[in-house]
Amino acid sequence: MKFSYLTHLYCPKCQAEYNPADIHQLCVCGSPLLAGYDLETLKKETRPETLVSRKPDLWRYHELLPVAEPGHIVSLGEGMTPLLAMPRIGTNMDIERLYMKDEGVIPTGSFKARGAAVGVSKAKELGVTGLAMPTNGNAGAAWALYAARAGLTSTIVMPALAPSITRNECAISGANLHLVEGLISDAGKIIAEAVKRHGWYDASTLKEPYRIEGKKTMGLEIAEQFGWKVPDVILYPTGGGVGLIGIYKALRELIQLGWIENRLPRLVAVQSAGCAPIVKAWKERRAESEFWTDSSTIAFGINVPKALGDFLVLKAIYETDGCAVAIEDGALLEELRAIAELEGAFVCPEGAIAFAAARDLRRTGWIKEGETVVVLNTGSGIKYPDTVQVEVPIMQPHETLPNDAGLR
Amino acid sequence: MKFSYLTHLYCPKCQAEYNPADIHQLCVCGSPLLAGYDLETLKKETRPETLVSRKPDLWRYHELLPVAEPGHIVSLGEGMTPLLAMPRIGTNMDIERLYMKDEGVIPTGSFKARGAAVGVSKAKELGVTGLAMPTNGNAGAAWALYAARAGLTSTIVMPALAPSITRNECAISGANLHLVEGLISDAGKIIAEAVKRHGWYDASTLKEPYRIEGKKTMGLEIAEQFGWKVPDVILYPTGGGVGLIGIYKALRELIQLGWIENRLPRLVAVQSAGCAPIVKAWKERRAESEFWTDSSTIAFGINVPKALGDFLVLKAIYETDGCAVAIEDGALLEELRAIAELEGAFVCPEGAIAFAAARDLRRTGWIKEGETVVVLNTGSGIKYPDTVQVEVPIMQPHETLPNDAGLR
Repeated sequence: MKFSYLTHLYCPKCQAEYNPADIHQLCVCGSPLLAGYDLETLKKETRPETLVSRKPDLWRYHELLPVAEPGHIVSLGEGMTPLLAMPRIGTNMDIERLYMKDEGVIPTGSFKARGAAVGVSKAKELGVTGLAMPTNGNAGAAWALYAARAGLTSTIVMPALAPSITRNECAISGANLHLVEGLISDAGKIIAEAVKRHGWYDASTLKEPYRIEGKKTMGLEIAEQFGWKVPDVILYPTGGGVGLIGIYKALRELIQLGWIENRLPRLVAVQSAGCAPIVKAWKERRAESEFWTDSSTIAFGINVPKALGDFLVLKAIYETDGCAVAIEDGALLEELRAIAELEGAFVCPEGAIAFAAARDLRRTGWIKEGETVVVLNTGSGIKYPDTVQVEVPIMQPHETLPNDAGLR
Repeated sequence: MKFSYLTHLYCPKCQAEYNPADIHQLCVCGSPLLAGYDLETLKKETRPETLVSRKPDLWRYHELLPVAEPGHIVSLGEGMTPLLAMPRIGTNMDIERLYMKDEGVIPTGSFKARGAAVGVSKAKELGVTGLAMPTNGNAGAAWALYAARAGLTSTIVMPALAPSITRNECAISGANLHLVEGLISDAGKIIAEAVKRHGWYDASTLKEPYRIEGKKTMGLEIAEQFGWKVPDVILYPTGGGVGLIGIYKALRELIQLGWIENRLPRLVAVQSAGCAPIVKAWKERRAESEFWTDSSTIAFGINVPKALGDFLVLKAIYETDGCAVAIEDGALLEELRAIAELEGAFVCPEGAIAFAAARDLRRTGWIKEGETVVVLNTGSGIKYPDTVQVEVPIMQPHETLPNDAGLR
């Protein structure tokens, strides 16, 4: 009975293998590396029932995570986020069985905490003392905070237009934060140059193999929360796409373990109409995407013109009979408000865009009547106050509320 | 085996009893009402082991909550927040066994979600269709969002200086929001007048008996998370004080059930030096507090000049050999930064002030060597971005990071 059943790292492009006891970034061929586990042995030694009495965080799946020693875990209590029925907005969009996996209810307020928790823990286990990365905001905030808890330094570069609260999170953690007048791709170039010059550990999306293992736990949790079953459709707001790749990887591992039946949900990559390279590639049945020029969307987290793992995202879509959908910012904002008014959930723009895509796909019939649909809300709306326009009447202490104040 | 063992409401001042099947606000004597349960029967019918396989939210304690029908539960997945060891800041303040109960990891980003979930659920069960309340921000945000999920209307009045994000939360939920140029006590007067005029349901702090039942679950969770044991000291940032009263009530109920031994942690009410009515009353060994004039603190949530439940807070302190401590805003800000840098936790100002109080109490020896200490962080720092001053260098896409960027 091992704590982790990690055995090797492998390249999904050229099939090269690497020893996970050493620090690795990309494969020599330039592809991201993925973590491999001894699922055959694990299948014999553990059953899902074993998990019942474990703590409700993502480390309950430690056998399927890369950290070898429990003492190396760097945790802020992340994981086992709520899977909520959304009956009122579901009725509103004619999806009776609509659920939200709410990744706003997690340390740092976004699903990036999962990747950071596992990525930083493994980096610490490997003896790393500092890390560097570009970010659209939330990932940098999460990695900076987990790095602080681990006692590692962090160097973060983010677009000047990234959500300002994520800047505060980096700053208070003591990170070395820089802004760039450009996109995450520009931040990525700056980090790549500095990593090369200084020999830093590169925690960029998919440039180390463990962030995806953290993101994978969303898939593990969805399966467990449905009683080791899977829904028919999962919609995921897609920038770098690590969460979608992770969910796909998780469900395949669960099938190999025999913990769920051999059936995958149709995975949907949701992008903004202002930055839709995956959607374009999917429509053209391509294996990879092209750089999307002049990208722009208020769903800042998915403003990623070209994802390093695009071929893995597209593979997950093709192999699950999924699809890719682009949504306009206007529809996003309408959906965000409807979700709050009908369900009391203040979702992030990226979450709202995935709900809007569900509405579209039901309208076109791609989502069929009676299907069980899960939307990933990747973060809390609290982190994006500017998506709400507020005009509030101001009173003086001696005044009284107008008679119509209780109506709406 | 009932879902809830609620039997009656009772007045802690005049001992009058009320039927919980009816809507009640305050006792006729003006005191808040508390919920009573048939603990004798529950003791025979349920054991703590029963809870193990239940979902990790506060409804796992449904027997000790007031909602009679599971179908009336209005939930966003609140509860079972992380209880985190804080070894680095603990060492820094010479408290080896320092823990944080992190109420930032909850829907709406603050512990107010607990009171709102239980309060709104019970209001819905009682047939209420709309509610009204004053707030310092977070409570209003939580009640507005849970009311939206329940399909109830909400009327909220908050100080114009309350954290602006809570305004966005109320607005997006569709609440009828008004600001007042004054304190929560001014907002309270406006609501009281409107409630009287319109016959609205008054959800003000302790003016309905069920918010405290939600807050109580913090105490239940702390006991369960320590394996049905209690720590030596619990520090709680105290404005209205409902959480502290709730934790005290919870632990007394657990003792009556025989689920924990007959020993209570010493409860500490932490206030700001700029608004410390409970501290003043405690120093003078009084049973009630006096209105604190010209109150002011950056820990906005605890800027409450006179709490309706002050006598219950003081009783809980006296009966547990606890104490009350006032902290300056400067110490709060230093502590907030230290917690982020050493533990990667971005706490709210109210949480930071409670950590600063722990540091003070250890320095004076009131907290003894080797004691287990729990600090309540009542919300996420994300909701208070202005507590962090950020000055970040801005780069152009073609620039490179300076050579010292990775150091700190």
